[in-house]
Amino acid sequence: MIFIDACFGKKTPYAPVWMMRQAGRYLPEYMRVRAEAGDFLSLCKDPKRACEVTLQPMDILGVDAAILFSDILVVPMEMGMDLRFEKGEGPVFDTPLTSRAQLEALHVEAAAERLSYVYEAISLVRAKLAPEKALIGFCGAPWTLATYMIEGKGTKTYAVCKKLLYSDPALLHAILRKVTDVLKLYMARQIEAGVNAVQIFDSWAAALEEAAFFEFSWSYIKELAAFLKETYPHVPVILFPKGISGYLDKIDGNFDVFGVDWSTPIELAKEKLGDKYVLQGNMEPTRLYDKKAIDAGIEHIVSVMQNSRHIFNLGHGILPDIPVEHAKYFIQSVQERTRL
Amino acid sequence: MIFIDACFGKKTPYAPVWMMRQAGRYLPEYMRVRAEAGDFLSLCKDPKRACEVTLQPMDILGVDAAILFSDILVVPMEMGMDLRFEKGEGPVFDTPLTSRAQLEALHVEAAAERLSYVYEAISLVRAKLAPEKALIGFCGAPWTLATYMIEGKGTKTYAVCKKLLYSDPALLHAILRKVTDVLKLYMARQIEAGVNAVQIFDSWAAALEEAAFFEFSWSYIKELAAFLKETYPHVPVILFPKGISGYLDKIDGNFDVFGVDWSTPIELAKEKLGDKYVLQGNMEPTRLYDKKAIDAGIEHIVSVMQNSRHIFNLGHGILPDIPVEHAKYFIQSVQERTRL
Repeated sequence: MIFIDACFGKKTPYAPVWMMRQAGRYLPEYMRVRAEAGDFLSLCKDPKRACEVTLQPMDILGVDAAILFSDILVVPMEMGMDLRFEKGEGPVFDTPLTSRAQLEALHVEAAAERLSYVYEAISLVRAKLAPEKALIGFCGAPWTLATYMIEGKGTKTYAVCKKLLYSDPALLHAILRKVTDVLKLYMARQIEAGVNAVQIFDSWAAALEEAAFFEFSWSYIKELAAFLKETYPHVPVILFPKGISGYLDKIDGNFDVFGVDWSTPIELAKEKLGDKYVLQGNMEPTRLYDKKAIDAGIEHIVSVMQNSRHIFNLGHGILPDIPVEHAKYFIQSVQERTRL
Repeated sequence: MIFIDACFGKKTPYAPVWMMRQAGRYLPEYMRVRAEAGDFLSLCKDPKRACEVTLQPMDILGVDAAILFSDILVVPMEMGMDLRFEKGEGPVFDTPLTSRAQLEALHVEAAAERLSYVYEAISLVRAKLAPEKALIGFCGAPWTLATYMIEGKGTKTYAVCKKLLYSDPALLHAILRKVTDVLKLYMARQIEAGVNAVQIFDSWAAALEEAAFFEFSWSYIKELAAFLKETYPHVPVILFPKGISGYLDKIDGNFDVFGVDWSTPIELAKEKLGDKYVLQGNMEPTRLYDKKAIDAGIEHIVSVMQNSRHIFNLGHGILPDIPVEHAKYFIQSVQERTRL
């Protein structure tokens, strides 16, 4: 698999390319299946339909890897928290996690067990996916999951999390500990079910100051990554902590690929991390509004990475109003432009 | 004035301190005056009440500088755009700027003239403010103002701006040119009316990729700053482009103080910019929820900056739900802790 080779820094015939949220709302085919499923969470829990939307971008765009269709919040949900997706509001936990008693009531082994619909979807996808294409499994980073669990919904200031961090850091660590334990089981089961690589999304890494990031987020990500690498050395681990360009110097740990968001200049990521890790990203997602902007964005990244130790991707998820034809143009342009 | 001395890098008896949005919603006294004024925009246009809320934090908190109460969007409003503040939605321009014809209809000299209520408020504040306290004037950076003018409201993706940037960069430059021309007149008038320093807020700097930031934002900020420094060398110019920690290396220009947001480690800002510019900031605003967190935050910044070439401030505006007592504790702790 060219994608897996690239994750391990091997020379590949061209730079592999996929897109975060490639199974998503910009595709009419996805919207059709989602409507059939009823709502977003039902789609996540339906292995057949999850499989179907996971495979859509393979046929439509010709990307080099599939990423399992799911949501990071199924994990806290199956730990025992009541999740719903509110129109216009995003995910909501009606009873946010604020006490040690609530934390103790949350499940670990049972959560990993209840997530069986994810493993079923993986088996279905892996059976149908072309053998040369990789399937990527994923999860949210413990910190990112904890922000939703503690705040109960999206937030601009992370005020509840920050108050907890300042007033009772031990409880915050206990929450992160328990989430990490679930994620180890969950990601191991994803790998056993057939994913070929895993990506850990720390979408809210930038909500923390530098020292707090390393204490409350990176340490748990590193532990999870190290556990997976020790147990499954053949499975590449991709880490994507978003918005931390100010402290790339201090990034270390046992993993393979570092995901570069679009706010981090690719030159900076290469300078700080390019020798230690393969890089992935960092095309600005709005460039997909305009073909000339796509060309220029690819050209810039190629000029810096020189077709070496880099996997193409957007620096954030694809936007819902991108024309499918432009997404296709991006994928094909990368594959043609980087062909040796 | 200790604040002005600090802006020019002179030794001061202690590190001066103020807070972005210090005249704001966390103060019951502010909420009372705002209710009297009717709404936010009416308060901005009412010199007496704007003066009153500008002065509130001086008495209540004992900060070392007042910052004029106003809003960055009064500038495009007086250029001729129809602004309203919608509850829960924030600022809205009902007819966003999308064409060259619309741009040509916008005013320059007349806009600077119509902003007379700002200059009146400045005269009133300067007359009442203690002589040893500085008054800071401000404006939004051309790019930040343009994002609101073009999008018509707040945005997560800046899709309309980005499409314009890719498809018609000349029109985007023409918009930024015209806004910059107004800001030169506006800031000159603020200085003539009595402000002792000026700050330019580029709140949405991070919406742009590195090269685009320097082309579409920083070049205009630099031009505005250089114009002000050449015309009024005795007035310190403070620049606050938010979220650009990945390319501090390339920051240059004729100005005095660089505002460090809280996502940029103060160590990094010092290393990259501390020799060239005085630094201001970068206390994490949520630390004001907790007194121990305030102490630790101050201690960290002091340990890095060593009471030299640094003005204390938050790394973003004060949050509306911060207890006034904690804000006061922050101000007093800085003044005591840094006293020589």
